[in-house]
Amino acid sequence: MNDRVHLAQSLPMTFAGSPLDRGDLIRRDATSLQAAFDQPNARCIQLCEGRPAMDESHQLIRFKMADTANWDATGPMIYLGSDQAGPLFACEIHADGAKSDALDPRQAAMNLPHFEAAIFAQAKSVFAWREKNRFCANCGQQTRQSAGGAKRVCDGCEIEHFPRVDPVVIMLATHEDKCLLGRQSSWPEGIWSALAGFVEPAETLEEACARELLEEAGVRADIAGIRYVMTQPWPMPHSLMVGLVAPVLGPELTIDTHELEQARWFSREDIRDMMAGTHDFAVMPPSIAMARRLAELWVEDVI
Amino acid sequence: MNDRVHLAQSLPMTFAGSPLDRGDLIRRDATSLQAAFDQPNARCIQLCEGRPAMDESHQLIRFKMADTANWDATGPMIYLGSDQAGPLFACEIHADGAKSDALDPRQAAMNLPHFEAAIFAQAKSVFAWREKNRFCANCGQQTRQSAGGAKRVCDGCEIEHFPRVDPVVIMLATHEDKCLLGRQSSWPEGIWSALAGFVEPAETLEEACARELLEEAGVRADIAGIRYVMTQPWPMPHSLMVGLVAPVLGPELTIDTHELEQARWFSREDIRDMMAGTHDFAVMPPSIAMARRLAELWVEDVI
Repeated sequence: MNDRVHLAQSLPMTFAGSPLDRGDLIRRDATSLQAAFDQPNARCIQLCEGRPAMDESHQLIRFKMADTANWDATGPMIYLGSDQAGPLFACEIHADGAKSDALDPRQAAMNLPHFEAAIFAQAKSVFAWREKNRFCANCGQQTRQSAGGAKRVCDGCEIEHFPRVDPVVIMLATHEDKCLLGRQSSWPEGIWSALAGFVEPAETLEEACARELLEEAGVRADIAGIRYVMTQPWPMPHSLMVGLVAPVLGPELTIDTHELEQARWFSREDIRDMMAGTHDFAVMPPSIAMARRLAELWVEDVI
Repeated sequence: MNDRVHLAQSLPMTFAGSPLDRGDLIRRDATSLQAAFDQPNARCIQLCEGRPAMDESHQLIRFKMADTANWDATGPMIYLGSDQAGPLFACEIHADGAKSDALDPRQAAMNLPHFEAAIFAQAKSVFAWREKNRFCANCGQQTRQSAGGAKRVCDGCEIEHFPRVDPVVIMLATHEDKCLLGRQSSWPEGIWSALAGFVEPAETLEEACARELLEEAGVRADIAGIRYVMTQPWPMPHSLMVGLVAPVLGPELTIDTHELEQARWFSREDIRDMMAGTHDFAVMPPSIAMARRLAELWVEDVI
């Protein structure tokens, strides 16, 4: 780990790098939030079943507020923040009222320019959370949106609920000159990726990484040898991917077939072939995926 | 950042370093879980209002299962995992049935030996989550515990709910030879600490760090200059503290008095005095706090 890894960390992944100021001072004050909404330059993006409305050049369409009047929305707009163009909101609509026949969310994300993908990710994460969190987990009553979507409030028990951000460790396990990739049976044919799993209560990122490697592949990492590489927001539905590299003590694998169909060691040459699309059987995840970035950095000896 | 920071990262914080194998294969199979419970060497720790039952030497009391029969529990036991001594469960009881007049949770944590604090943290996080998540956020029905507490299941809409782990960035902002500490009016007199805040949907750890510094103190961090230091589980209630160091572009402060009472720059000499308890007005948080660890590493020029 050296300055090269730091340089790599400063190249943001897809979904990172939002140009918006989330405007905490604005959203937490109802009057300020209304004033932002009422500005003539306020705009609104639209999501339908997780897909963004885009124009022909794959920009998110920024609708004027007047255009949104008849939308069949799934709930109130959320406030995303502001940039030089003005305040930006997002609205999710029911499928019937779709203004766009956009691609599926992953495909859409891959087609969006960098800043647009980050804005889309924010809206998508919050809507995904809202969809499954309309009731109070503490008392069972319906909750209502507050602070422009930054929280939901229960008028019954007066508890506030904040959007979930679920930390996930995704790690390139390494041993000597090879790295470990696995595949799940549900994935498209040929795709091999880094192992990953949700962080559980009361463990560090490094402990979660070691636990997942042991559970899924039967390999033991030295916790002190695990290194943080970078993070990426992942809005399907609302995870925070934490990329790590994890040297392990030995190459023997014991695969948990409940989690993985297969796992195996790949050489640098294998990885280069996968990147080039010339490998016998294995294909890398697309460039929006942390797994690919980790493999790229490893094959270049940066991590 | 060099090998010294890596050495520092390998010295785990309080609440990290659990010796238990969480036994994913056991907990996800009801028969295996029952078999673990039925083992003669199965034991159970007890929490009451967030406080652990401890013996005179500040070890968690490991009750035999027979001893737990009449406990006034707030819900089913949870399975924490296993170590060489056998399977370990945890039970939370109502205040009336308290078996111990233990200290408040923070105080208890400070008195627990390292491994014991990590076990306590796991139980405390899950119970804190369960207390506020007995209903389905998707449909409002009551949920039930499953997989030894690793999830809750809604029989109404058939959704599974997993314990929350809320990532929080806690960062030592630095400028030239000074570091930034703030204080909240609710804190004990004299305590100054690193700034911190919850990660929001669709931002990286580094973006969350930069946003919080700008929101709370009006200082701008260069995102590419922010460095990860280490993580710590924080079971009040179920956060994952991510320690960062963040060089900022200028020293001028604009304090958000909604969040902070004060913020100011401290020299290395100030920090040393605070550590020694000889500073004029400022006191460091206790050794269990990430803020203190970050300040220690910074004053020793490790980060």
